[in-house]
Amino acid sequence: MRTLLATVALVALAAPASADTLYDNVNGLRADEEGRIERFDALLVSDDGKVVQLVAQGVERPEADFVLDMEGRTMMPGLIDAHGHVIGLGLATMQLDLTGTASIAELKQRVADYAAANPDLPWITGRGWNQELFADGRMPRASDLDAVVPDRPVWLGRVDGHAAIANSAAMKAAGVTAASTVPEGGEMVMGEDGQPTGLFIDTAEQLVAKAVPQNDAATLDLALAAAQQFALSHGLTAVADMGTAVGDWHAMRRAGDRGSLKLRIMSYSGGLEPALTIAGTGPTPWLYDGKLRMGGIKLYSDGALGSRGALLKQPYEDAPASSGLPVTPMPLLEQQAITGASRGFQMAIHAIGDAANDTVIGIFERLGGGDNARHRIEHVQILDPADLPRIARAGIIASMQPVHQSSDWQMAEKRLGPDRLGAAYAWKSILDSGARLAFGSDFPVEHPNPFVGLKVAISREDAKGQPQGGWLANEKLSFGQALAAFTTGAAHAGFAEKKFGSLEAGQYADFIIVDRDPTAVDADALAETQVLQSWVGGRKVYSRD
Amino acid sequence: MRTLLATVALVALAAPASADTLYDNVNGLRADEEGRIERFDALLVSDDGKVVQLVAQGVERPEADFVLDMEGRTMMPGLIDAHGHVIGLGLATMQLDLTGTASIAELKQRVADYAAANPDLPWITGRGWNQELFADGRMPRASDLDAVVPDRPVWLGRVDGHAAIANSAAMKAAGVTAASTVPEGGEMVMGEDGQPTGLFIDTAEQLVAKAVPQNDAATLDLALAAAQQFALSHGLTAVADMGTAVGDWHAMRRAGDRGSLKLRIMSYSGGLEPALTIAGTGPTPWLYDGKLRMGGIKLYSDGALGSRGALLKQPYEDAPASSGLPVTPMPLLEQQAITGASRGFQMAIHAIGDAANDTVIGIFERLGGGDNARHRIEHVQILDPADLPRIARAGIIASMQPVHQSSDWQMAEKRLGPDRLGAAYAWKSILDSGARLAFGSDFPVEHPNPFVGLKVAISREDAKGQPQGGWLANEKLSFGQALAAFTTGAAHAGFAEKKFGSLEAGQYADFIIVDRDPTAVDADALAETQVLQSWVGGRKVYSRD
Repeated sequence: MRTLLATVALVALAAPASADTLYDNVNGLRADEEGRIERFDALLVSDDGKVVQLVAQGVERPEADFVLDMEGRTMMPGLIDAHGHVIGLGLATMQLDLTGTASIAELKQRVADYAAANPDLPWITGRGWNQELFADGRMPRASDLDAVVPDRPVWLGRVDGHAAIANSAAMKAAGVTAASTVPEGGEMVMGEDGQPTGLFIDTAEQLVAKAVPQNDAATLDLALAAAQQFALSHGLTAVADMGTAVGDWHAMRRAGDRGSLKLRIMSYSGGLEPALTIAGTGPTPWLYDGKLRMGGIKLYSDGALGSRGALLKQPYEDAPASSGLPVTPMPLLEQQAITGASRGFQMAIHAIGDAANDTVIGIFERLGGGDNARHRIEHVQILDPADLPRIARAGIIASMQPVHQSSDWQMAEKRLGPDRLGAAYAWKSILDSGARLAFGSDFPVEHPNPFVGLKVAISREDAKGQPQGGWLANEKLSFGQALAAFTTGAAHAGFAEKKFGSLEAGQYADFIIVDRDPTAVDADALAETQVLQSWVGGRKVYSRD
Repeated sequence: MRTLLATVALVALAAPASADTLYDNVNGLRADEEGRIERFDALLVSDDGKVVQLVAQGVERPEADFVLDMEGRTMMPGLIDAHGHVIGLGLATMQLDLTGTASIAELKQRVADYAAANPDLPWITGRGWNQELFADGRMPRASDLDAVVPDRPVWLGRVDGHAAIANSAAMKAAGVTAASTVPEGGEMVMGEDGQPTGLFIDTAEQLVAKAVPQNDAATLDLALAAAQQFALSHGLTAVADMGTAVGDWHAMRRAGDRGSLKLRIMSYSGGLEPALTIAGTGPTPWLYDGKLRMGGIKLYSDGALGSRGALLKQPYEDAPASSGLPVTPMPLLEQQAITGASRGFQMAIHAIGDAANDTVIGIFERLGGGDNARHRIEHVQILDPADLPRIARAGIIASMQPVHQSSDWQMAEKRLGPDRLGAAYAWKSILDSGARLAFGSDFPVEHPNPFVGLKVAISREDAKGQPQGGWLANEKLSFGQALAAFTTGAAHAGFAEKKFGSLEAGQYADFIIVDRDPTAVDADALAETQVLQSWVGGRKVYSRD
């Protein structure tokens, strides 16, 4: 029964002509790894959505089955957000948006309006408030919310997600009292009357959050669809999801299984558990034609600067009794990092304050692995200048979010005073030290628009042009360096540099068409860049029309 | 930019010759849906692993690129187990196997030997004991185990999984005392001294099981690999996994993602939660080329007959104070079934006793849906004859395990007495009533070998040939009817009849080569059939050589 007979000879045929498409007559630009801008005139893409050839300026056009005349429009590699929260972005579009609220009075009004418009919602949830925008800078209290919604739970996250405010009904629903045990790494802020004020910081948020109705699968599916659309419309073709929960992962797989995953997602498990359960003994393969991979694990070392949760080497300038909070106690953090890294996962650890960064750099120095491991520090906001050279030396990736600088600079000056800003949001110094940068937005903490990130990276000015000339202006990047951090750098940070990021031959054809040449406009106009089309794997997945 | 120009005309080529393979000169047999045996001489399979043509006897051979001379060996469709526990089968190969233990003295010896051979195992876990095989029929007690393993927890499941025995160290590790709250649907068996004996029945098993160290991903991966190999070596090419846990599912996906899923798995979520979390708003698509789908949800209405957990309309003959245990209280069971079915999931509900079957038939009658829904009763062991016709009328699938009959018949007579066996393990009556049968083994409760199931289905005799002539012999099936229940019936029960089960053109080429013609031998020889090769999707995945 092992006799193999060829009864009909296979006709020797030339491989059938694959249907290559030439995107011709483009004003093409990309950045190489060193941040040099390269121009190209055309892009040849195979039928399976991969780049066959990037046609440099003046080079003869290759043959193609189809030619698409792009009429001189500007083409760039799809942008990559190296640090976002995909499901969070989608959910944010589905709940009360408090970003830009300018006073507690306005916050109360927005909550009252939303509650009136949604009478059947069992919980009023929202996010985006920032007391830094209030004239008096006062944190909201439960009593503020009780005045407008006394009968239903209200739970509102601060813009950075590191603090949240509950009304009395929410605390009651969650069983929170002055006697509640506050988990390590968090704070339940108490009033002068010895009762909870309603403000919960970092891990203490769980005291109330556990009572919020869980998002069901249908809600997560809607959130993922909304997030994809939102990201693609701003020119993002890939994102690193920083803290994928098990339910988030199932939503991503459902989308992949059903063919509705358009955005590429580099998933970092939210803590050890999802990675060990889902991916098991090591990263997943790339799934769905390079659309999804769980390759790493996100951990937290400290909180955020705005809520004074960032861990500092010296006390806060504006709160001398506090130096911040270690979200994960050091021995446990290192143990978790060893557990993850020993299974081949890339570790991505949140560190904002200089003490937290020192700690995490130390962990990665001991883990080792260099470019094979590519362990990452997320945010790297406040460094002790003495620690800065250790990042490049240990082969650590600096995953930073330019827009945080423009949102934070005034607050950072208050928190740290003038003498501890020598390596604050110091992307240029980090790059010059030899480390790799990966840029993102931390959406939905910030808006995902990467063109705003590019603008801040090169100008160090906020949306109002402040401070004029740029904050700590020696940290400005060139446009090419910033673009590299949003493309090749972000791809490299996700072990995806062979898959996408620079339109090299063999990569997926992930590109965007924009309404202006970003090298030919000033920083403010750069931030206004409009995305006309987004293409992923040679397929158009967003069009502005 | 929308101008599409064909610069190079596509050369019009005939589609490249696909490499069809003809498996010629086979002694082929399959069963149609009515259980008629059909013979065939050859099978033509396309390069993508699908059946192109089943060549009936005497029909001219089609052309093919390759011809494999099968030298007259017997070919059958791959067999399908409609009710098994895939990961449980794998884990069973990795822990202490107590099947066949003939006395408590032997059980103690096996435990002692295993503990000595595995000094580093923190827990001694095993399964497979059956007090029905002990001369005195006494259930084991904690004190039996304490005598051989006093210092480590020991936890041993009964053969049917519906009872388990703990030693004192296991109860101590789990914090179990006489004061422990026993969950509804279970029993912690107490001794005359008012203390737990160590025996836990049905849901009460959780009191101890929760303390057993969880299987990590690496263990689950090994278990899945072992289970696949075991099933394929016995001629099973597809199984319904009855009660997939979230961790089990992740292991199946890891295997699928890495290309090591060979066995087809029709997954039924273990309770509502995994299905709602994983699959979300409805069944998953078929994944990995028809290898995996979560299409249904497994619930329990009662326990098992051996442990007197099966829910009866009248008290047990051999325990007049008991009528069994409802594992899930009726209103909750119906609510769960409505929740699952309303999202498009197929409901598969375990029912052993006549009262449980009555209840579940009632739930399915109210749910409706007929062949679109294909709700299933798992086991259907003891029916009130008055309820039997309701199964076909409601379009319910009877998912039965022939081997249970041969294991249980003496025990069933004791539990029920002579007058309540009118519709016991009554597959022929159920089939004659117009219902669809799906056969399986309930592995690892029973051995997965489907040829033993086929033998019991046609003979109603156990491995010792008892009772001679068959138990309730009017319930014997023809071989063709039994084969249909293990192929087309089991495929239909998993909404897979267009994918596999009968080697129809368009189905996957899932077939086996066996060492004898099962229609040409007696029942005992049928049970001894050896599988020489198993093929799934046109690829050889097991060979006895």
